[in-house]
Amino acid sequence: MPFVRIDALHADRKRLEAVGRAVHEALIDAIGIPRDDLFQVLTSHDGTRSMLRYDDYFGIHRDDDIVFASITMRSGRTDDQKLALYRRIADLAKEYADLEPRNVLVMIHENTSIDWSLGEGVAQYAQTSG
Amino acid sequence: MPFVRIDALHADRKRLEAVGRAVHEALIDAIGIPRDDLFQVLTSHDGTRSMLRYDDYFGIHRDDDIVFASITMRSGRTDDQKLALYRRIADLAKEYADLEPRNVLVMIHENTSIDWSLGEGVAQYAQTSG
Amino acid sequence: MPFVRIDALHADRKRLEAVGRAVHEALIDAIGIPRDDLFQVLTSHDGTRSMLRYDDYFGIHRDDDIVFASITMRSGRTDDQKLALYRRIADLAKEYADLEPRNVLVMIHENTSIDWSLGEGVAQYAQTSG
Repeated sequence: MPFVRIDALHADRKRLEAVGRAVHEALIDAIGIPRDDLFQVLTSHDGTRSMLRYDDYFGIHRDDDIVFASITMRSGRTDDQKLALYRRIADLAKEYADLEPRNVLVMIHENTSIDWSLGEGVAQYAQTSG
Repeated sequence: MPFVRIDALHADRKRLEAVGRAVHEALIDAIGIPRDDLFQVLTSHDGTRSMLRYDDYFGIHRDDDIVFASITMRSGRTDDQKLALYRRIADLAKEYADLEPRNVLVMIHENTSIDWSLGEGVAQYAQTSG
Repeated sequence: MPFVRIDALHADRKRLEAVGRAVHEALIDAIGIPRDDLFQVLTSHDGTRSMLRYDDYFGIHRDDDIVFASITMRSGRTDDQKLALYRRIADLAKEYADLEPRNVLVMIHENTSIDWSLGEGVAQYAQTSG
């Protein structure tokens, strides 16, 4: 169910996959999602036809290694789980992709069980909770 | 108002359009949106500069025909309308794009009337409901 | 904190940047965000591997200059601030990118303070408000 969209600059396939793996492992470790609950869109922008813009907001220096990770999931996760998720993403992105924690932006969007169809034209979460 | 973002792998223009048409017709049939209420971003990923990652979560086997459809709309639609929407997207994606229902992920994001400007720098829904 | 995703058709780098600048300046003017609070993904679609679909909904005539701007920010902004934002985006997009206001779609997604990590693996807004 977490649906993850990751945007990076000038990243090759290997780097994209490493960042995607970091976010996925962090979701498993911090939120407890099943390992096969994997839905990601990873995009590397070339700086011409598509680009990222950023600055040093909140006193954090960022550079072109910047990564934006947007996570959509059902509501219900606690603040502590979200805090653990951010920490774990930063740690694993450093470990897997040599990405500095200062370059990792994460944001969460929440919806509800009825808002997901995982395939087959049905709403799996609505059915299992009903 | 529904804003639709569709992501696919190795899809040509014709296939992208067919999937976009399936989602749009389903929104008309299941939710009752006007036919010209069409706002879609359709992206085919090449698997190198951008890619999709997925697995067989919830016992559903997926392959590279996978399509992610993300729909943003105002809150207020009933659970039954959403269920009908998922069913209709799956049926029409099969009919228009020969897409297996197991390969279609749909998720819904909701916001409110004031959160939309359809053009001209004004919030059309806020005005008409005010 | 506002995270902005902009999609356009056949736009060169200069045009993408002009639109991005218009949205950012409008957020500063209408919402009061800090100037360096900048997180944008700007994408030009080529109409083949990726595309935008649209129509003349709400009696507004659109063409291939169309721009979709999706803004994610914390809840708490007033309706008046959002109305001012739409007006200002339209005005500045015209001024900076010669974009007709009829071609500018804006939508807002809201979340909360705990839903953001601006870097370093922590939730900056949750900390400062706690």
